[in-house]
Order: sequence, then C-alpha cells, then structure tokens
Amino acid sequence: MPETKNVVMGIDMGGTSLRGLVVNAANEILAVEKTPTNPKQAPDRLIADLAGWIEDVVRASGIQRSQFAAVSIGAPGAVDPQSGIVYHAPNLGWDKVALGPKLSKLLRVPVLVENDVNVGVVGEYALGAARGSRQLVGIFVGTGIGGGILFDGVLYSGSRGAAAELGHNVLLVDGPRCGCGSRGCAEALASRTAMERDVRAAIKEGAKSVVLKMMKERAKDRMTSSIIQRALRKRDHVMQEVVKRAQHYLGILVANVVNTLDPDCVVIGGGIAERLGEGFVAPIRRIAYEHFLRRHDAERVRVVPGALGDNAGPLGAVVLARQRLHLGAKK
Amino acid sequence: MPETKNVVMGIDMGGTSLRGLVVNAANEILAVEKTPTNPKQAPDRLIADLAGWIEDVVRASGIQRSQFAAVSIGAPGAVDPQSGIVYHAPNLGWDKVALGPKLSKLLRVPVLVENDVNVGVVGEYALGAARGSRQLVGIFVGTGIGGGILFDGVLYSGSRGAAAELGHNVLLVDGPRCGCGSRGCAEALASRTAMERDVRAAIKEGAKSVVLKMMKERAKDRMTSSIIQRALRKRDHVMQEVVKRAQHYLGILVANVVNTLDPDCVVIGGGIAERLGEGFVAPIRRIAYEHFLRRHDAERVRVVPGALGDNAGPLGAVVLARQRLHLGAKK
Repeated sequence: MPETKNVVMGIDMGGTSLRGLVVNAANEILAVEKTPTNPKQAPDRLIADLAGWIEDVVRASGIQRSQFAAVSIGAPGAVDPQSGIVYHAPNLGWDKVALGPKLSKLLRVPVLVENDVNVGVVGEYALGAARGSRQLVGIFVGTGIGGGILFDGVLYSGSRGAAAELGHNVLLVDGPRCGCGSRGCAEALASRTAMERDVRAAIKEGAKSVVLKMMKERAKDRMTSSIIQRALRKRDHVMQEVVKRAQHYLGILVANVVNTLDPDCVVIGGGIAERLGEGFVAPIRRIAYEHFLRRHDAERVRVVPGALGDNAGPLGAVVLARQRLHLGAKK
Repeated sequence: MPETKNVVMGIDMGGTSLRGLVVNAANEILAVEKTPTNPKQAPDRLIADLAGWIEDVVRASGIQRSQFAAVSIGAPGAVDPQSGIVYHAPNLGWDKVALGPKLSKLLRVPVLVENDVNVGVVGEYALGAARGSRQLVGIFVGTGIGGGILFDGVLYSGSRGAAAELGHNVLLVDGPRCGCGSRGCAEALASRTAMERDVRAAIKEGAKSVVLKMMKERAKDRMTSSIIQRALRKRDHVMQEVVKRAQHYLGILVANVVNTLDPDCVVIGGGIAERLGEGFVAPIRRIAYEHFLRRHDAERVRVVPGALGDNAGPLGAVVLARQRLHLGAKK
C-alpha cells in the first residue's frame, strides 16, 4: 500500500443524507458510507458531526492518517469553490455557511466544496458514461433540475460562477410558477417535484392512481424515484402520463442546450435516471433529436443516462480535488 | 502607405444586398460599398459577378493589388468555415455552394467564409460594444434570430459546428410553428418575420394600424426595420404591442442563455436594434434580469445594443480573417 498522501474522501451532501466514498489514487473505492443529515441542526453542529463521521469512515477504511489527503464535497446549492462557502442551500436550510474553512480546521486537511451537480457531471466525465467527451452537458433531474458544463474536462462556471443553471431554462413562458420566482422553467415542468404536483392534481381531478397509497404504505411524504419506478411497473396510468410529459419537456430542454452549445454528449443523471436508465432517457433523446436545428447528424450528439448512479457525485468530487490540489492519480 | 499584403475586404452577404468594406491593418476603413444581389441568379453567375465587383471596389479604394491580402465573407446560413462551403442559405436560395474555393480561384487571394451572425459578433467584440468581454453572447434579430458565442474572443462552434443557434431556443412549447419545423422557437416569437405575422393578424382582427399603408407607400412587401421604427414614432398601437411582446420573449431568451452560459456581456444586434438602439434593448434587459436565477448581481452581465450597425459583419469578417490567416494588425 502506498504511503503517499493521496487518498481523498468524496462526499455528496443531500438534504436528507450524506454519501461518502474513500478513494485511493487508482480511483479504487476503499469504503462507502451513508449517514442521515438533519437539516434542522445548526450548521456548526452539523459540520462538527460531519467531521467526526469523516474521521470514523477514514479510520475504518484501513488507510493511514498520513495518506489522507483531502475531503471534497458536492453541496446542493450556490457554492463558491474558491472560498468553500455555501451561499444558498434551501435543502439544508443554509445561507452563507463557511463549510470548507470550518471543516478543514476540524480535520486538518484541505476541504473542497463544489455544487453537487457539477461534481456529478465531473464523475460521469472522468469515470462514467461521458468519458472522452470534449463538450459535455449534464442534466440532473431530482427534487430540482441542475446542470453542469465541461469543456475538455474542465468545469465551465461563467463570468459570475452562475453558469449551467439548466433547470431555469424557461420552456413555457407564463407556465407554472417555479421556486426561483419565474414561470415555466424546466424545473417547474419536469423535476420530481413538478411530477408530484401533476400526479396529485390528476388524482384530485378524479383520476385513479396507486401512487398515494404507495406513498402511505412506505411512509413517504414525497413521491420518491423509487415510487415513480414502482408505479410505472404497475402501469399506473397517471404516472405514465406525467412521466411522459416530463420526458417531453426534458427533450426540449436538451434540444435548447444543444442548439446553444452543440456538445458531443449530454448525460442525464439524478435519481429517476439512475432507476429507470435507458427507459427514461430514450424518449428524451428522441424528442431532443426532433428539436435540434441540425438534424441530419443529430446522433453525433450522444444523449445517455449516467453510469455511476449515486457514486457519480462523490467520485466526481474526488476527481475534482485531485485536479485542484494537483494530487497525483495513477495512470 | 505600407506595401505589405495586409488589406482585407470584409463582406456581409444578404439576400437582397452585399455590403463590403476595404480595411487596412490599422482597421481603418478605406472604402464602403453596397451592391444589390439577385437570389434568382445561379450561384456560379453570382460568384462571378461578386468577383468582378470586389476587383472594382478594391481598385477604387486606392490600394495596390499587391497589398490586397484576402476576402472574408459573412454568409447567411449554415457554413463550413474550414472548406468555405455554404451548405444551406435559404435567403440566397443556396444549397452546398463552394463559395470560398470558387471565389478564391477567381480572385487569386484567400477567401474565408463564416456565418453572418458569427462575424457580426466578432465585429462587436473586436471593435464595438462588447470590447473586453471574456464570455460573449451575441443575439442578432432580423428576418430570423441568429446567435454567436465567443470565449476570450474566439468563436465557439461546438462539436458539429452547430452551436449558438439561439433563435431555436424553444420558449413556448407548442407555440407558433417555426421555419425549422419546431414550435415556439424564439425566432417564431420575436423575429421581424414573427412581428410582421402578429401585426397582420391584429389588423385582420380589426385593430387600426398605419403599418400596411406605410408599406404600400414605400413599395415594401415586408415589414422592414425602418417601418417598425416609423410606426413606433407614430405611436401605432398595434406596433407598440407587437414590439413589446417580442421584447418580452427576447428578454427571456437572454435569461435562458445567461442561466446556461453566464456571460459577462450579451450584445443585441441586427436591423431593429441598430435603428432603435437602447430603446429596443432596455426592456429586453429589464425582463432578462428578472429571469436570471442569480439576480443580486444581475447587472454584472451587460446587455447592450451593438455599436457598429451594419459594419459589424464586414468588420468582424476582416478581424476573423486576420486571426485565421495570421495576418498582422497594427497594435
């Protein structure tokens, strides 16, 4: 086992749980752990608990403390990667929290912080479905819709660090209200939250559906990706229609992005794509291709589901840390 | 007068006329000429006429033939800059015309061909309203809506050369049919063609407007930018409403592009913006800012009218030729 300081812990931070991977220089996963988060905790308390959990996971992974080089975190919200500050993360209830500096002080290793979707896209680029892409767009569909753009493997952040907010592409002027205040954003039309709203509305209007019963049975107050998958398997008509409409909007979102950036690859990630894979992406691809301005070689733009599942974020975070801290990775 | 071979003729090629500038290495304009084009001419005939016209203009500009380095053309349509072939230019009635090679053979100088909007954005970057921009998006509103993207002054063309087709950003799913076959594209909502359609529809429904009378008086079968300007000056209510709606859509188009690319500058060009300037752009900017996901520093993204008018294209073509042919330009 190499004694050099090159083991990185990558963490995907969600509103309900954290997923952490301990990864060596050969990108081998030495440990995978998950822990619930409590968004009602004060940020400082959550960070202290997080530091303790990280120490435990690293210790249990069997590496020497001297090999432990860095922690790299994907956080859900507006992040300043330079300072490590999380400016706005509604799912965590955070507003301007110095996650990077505080955690680094507790752990005495560098801590990098990036947006969670950005790290997911980096993961799929480096180790997943988008390897070799020169112009890559990632669209992650979950509670919201996030995006990431990579040119030659490097995250594109724009002039203010506000690029790739693809969920806020307006697809339907004067459409349904979005959490951001605008109307008709992709997120308000095709996120899991929008799908749940549409399922509930259809049921309220009298349509028959197993979804609410499923949620009750599983004590879920939200329509999770798992429930979407189960309802589709049961051929729940409401769910079929709602997912079909979301796929239509996502296809047009992909086309808007392709007519703007003409990438060679669009990777669709997030919970639903993870569970349904090609079955979810195929209709999105078909609709996207129909809406490309240049259609004769549309298939040169690959539109694919992510390949790494919920490891995309933590692995991408590790890859990003190696880039930014100039840590070696075995070739 | 320097004897080196560094005078370039830049040409903006339109469906009804050509505009040509003879430009020296200090970017001084030595001659400006305009000539009508006849799209009914066979391409070879048009190219032969064009060669003769270029020879005449260059001769009349007073430079030596030995100083004449290159011709650079912005063409309306799908262009392959590497080969100089115009693949599809509906306004010219062209389909796969080897404009660059043929013209170069006749003139015995290199001939570059680029998309007309791309050269316009390069012009505004190098010499106009977008100087110093690091991430620049140009949106040119005319018969259609075209776009151009420049990173650090270099045109971004994407994986297939199909990037920056911003007129085909769908803003209204299931909206009005676009020439491209899709529905609800920005071009089908906010181009001059869309505005004319809406003006005619309002008049048909009984609204009072001076527009058709103006067109008849000036023997125009199309609602030109000049007619839009005159009708607005006369406070024509139909025109005011139609322009206002187009500005709303353009504001949302700008926001979609900013939420994707977060540029430091968006330059609005084309005939209407040339004539109306800030009066056209101010409402677009206001609506765009309202739809940015990140609003607190929205004004860091400049949204400005072009400054070069119809010289943007020819000047941009010249600048691009200097870059690509590595011709010197005086500092």
